[in-house]
Amino acid sequence: MEVATITNITLEGARILITGGAGMIGSHIAQLAVAQKAKVTIVDALLPLYGGNLFDLQEIATQIDFIQGDIRDPALMARVVQGQDIIFNLAGQVSYVDSNLDPLLDLDINCRGHLTVLEACRHNNRRARLVFASSRFVYGSIDYTPVDENHPFNCRSIYGIHKLAGEKYYRFYYDAHGMDTVSLRIANPYGPKQQMKHSKYGIVNWFIRLALEGKPLTIFGNGEQKRDYIYNQDLAEAFLTVAQTPGTAGEVYNVGSGTGTPFKEMARLVAAAVPGTQVVQVEWPADRYFVETGDYISDLTKLTTATTWRPQTTLEEGINRTVAFYREHWQQYW
Amino acid sequence: MEVATITNITLEGARILITGGAGMIGSHIAQLAVAQKAKVTIVDALLPLYGGNLFDLQEIATQIDFIQGDIRDPALMARVVQGQDIIFNLAGQVSYVDSNLDPLLDLDINCRGHLTVLEACRHNNRRARLVFASSRFVYGSIDYTPVDENHPFNCRSIYGIHKLAGEKYYRFYYDAHGMDTVSLRIANPYGPKQQMKHSKYGIVNWFIRLALEGKPLTIFGNGEQKRDYIYNQDLAEAFLTVAQTPGTAGEVYNVGSGTGTPFKEMARLVAAAVPGTQVVQVEWPADRYFVETGDYISDLTKLTTATTWRPQTTLEEGINRTVAFYREHWQQYW
Repeated sequence: MEVATITNITLEGARILITGGAGMIGSHIAQLAVAQKAKVTIVDALLPLYGGNLFDLQEIATQIDFIQGDIRDPALMARVVQGQDIIFNLAGQVSYVDSNLDPLLDLDINCRGHLTVLEACRHNNRRARLVFASSRFVYGSIDYTPVDENHPFNCRSIYGIHKLAGEKYYRFYYDAHGMDTVSLRIANPYGPKQQMKHSKYGIVNWFIRLALEGKPLTIFGNGEQKRDYIYNQDLAEAFLTVAQTPGTAGEVYNVGSGTGTPFKEMARLVAAAVPGTQVVQVEWPADRYFVETGDYISDLTKLTTATTWRPQTTLEEGINRTVAFYREHWQQYW
Repeated sequence: MEVATITNITLEGARILITGGAGMIGSHIAQLAVAQKAKVTIVDALLPLYGGNLFDLQEIATQIDFIQGDIRDPALMARVVQGQDIIFNLAGQVSYVDSNLDPLLDLDINCRGHLTVLEACRHNNRRARLVFASSRFVYGSIDYTPVDENHPFNCRSIYGIHKLAGEKYYRFYYDAHGMDTVSLRIANPYGPKQQMKHSKYGIVNWFIRLALEGKPLTIFGNGEQKRDYIYNQDLAEAFLTVAQTPGTAGEVYNVGSGTGTPFKEMARLVAAAVPGTQVVQVEWPADRYFVETGDYISDLTKLTTATTWRPQTTLEEGINRTVAFYREHWQQYW
């Protein structure tokens, strides 16, 4: 296998490590990679409050290596990165709300953890492709839409600040150590296998849980605020496509649907997928209003110019599939 | 005393905390503040490899409270921030070279340390003015000069990435918690009281040490690369002026001389100040070349528009004063 910057990578036989691989995006990447005959290793700490769930991996449990471990463990990281061709880094504290309540914990996982992985690769495997899961939260308050990668970093959360630092680390290891790194700024992901124990992750999935439990969906404000909801299977395909595309090293790409959907339209689609669901409207709670960033729509020009990836799943279709998934498997997720 | 955003602060009787206050910039701030009858407390860890030196404080030793302690100590920080009117945060790992060799140590001091101070203030003193020492290293490779505050963050060091995170924290605590924070991006500081045990800090001071020891000064490349050298007494005045100026909360300002001096001209001035000094020219060493950022000159428009501060000291005058200082006190610094 050649270095990724020189030639296309085929997944057949490739050794792939996924940190946070028991979470909703990582597990989708794993499933797609296994289907293409990659040798997949997953490291996930399965921290109780976060997204890791062994059920996410049950269809491929016999075809992967699973290690319960933490990206903050330098000895473990030094060992597991060896010999990998591609490393997808999705481990993390993923709630911006929690990051603001406990900035030092977010720092520990989202900066120290990812620096630990990068240092492990610097010392033990400089040839791997490294793909980092960043977030639209680096942009914070939005100055214009659609948002391209040059938009200012008006971070409105500790989570966003640490994701920005993570991207900068990735670029630094590319510049300074010739490592093959790339970052993806994820819009609002949703879909099967997201954890749904509390409301702090994706709002689409949380609405689906509320609807399935017969509870009303609450819209803050007038519900006109637009979001870019990206189905997590599409997202997993974006990660794999970028990892296989030469010329992406050192770069940062937005990944989303490229479509802005008003919040109330998303709620309407969830309600339509679960007949009998009520939608109610309330004022913005003060703590949420602070992190309301304004409309967000990804400009995907950079990604779609560099790669063959395109979003495939409409929000309606994605919500319907997600509802079907949780109707069957809700006991595993809440 | 009123909140700083509402009215000018006078220093007489003001309670001022300086973290890293035994270092070259902090000790100058302390001296100026004591002269204006402020009540000054200094916290400095006096870590052996860093800039803290009790000799820096000897003229004011009986007029300040000194605490040997680390900004990474939450209990200490919770105690010392209470009742302070202004907190200058200069503690840090300050070598970009070391930051690249040991990114996790830089993270620990420059991110965890400063987040610990901010969290201590959030819980124990939300009224203080907080002034953060950031750095031109957030800009990394320079796209244009003079460099204004909107220049992209092309960070070329872990140090620069963590300073950027620090600035973003300061802005976040302003936005989210209504705290009165401001950051200064420092150009190339030099002057009396800088530590000179090794070459990893300021090059002007290192050249002065070499000259005083009768050693030649080495210029990398053609010596035309421009830097913005700022005398540390001018810098201390900038910190105090910004702290006393309403309307600066939430902002970031460049601070430098506003003048670009070719490297070889700086060397010539040092050689002139220490008669008999030789200047020699060599190729760029590979490890230094990576972090060579291109010419750097601060655009001071934002700072000089917002405040009355102006740089006062020419490079020639500053070098002469610095040489005179170290001729007398070199035993304390190397």
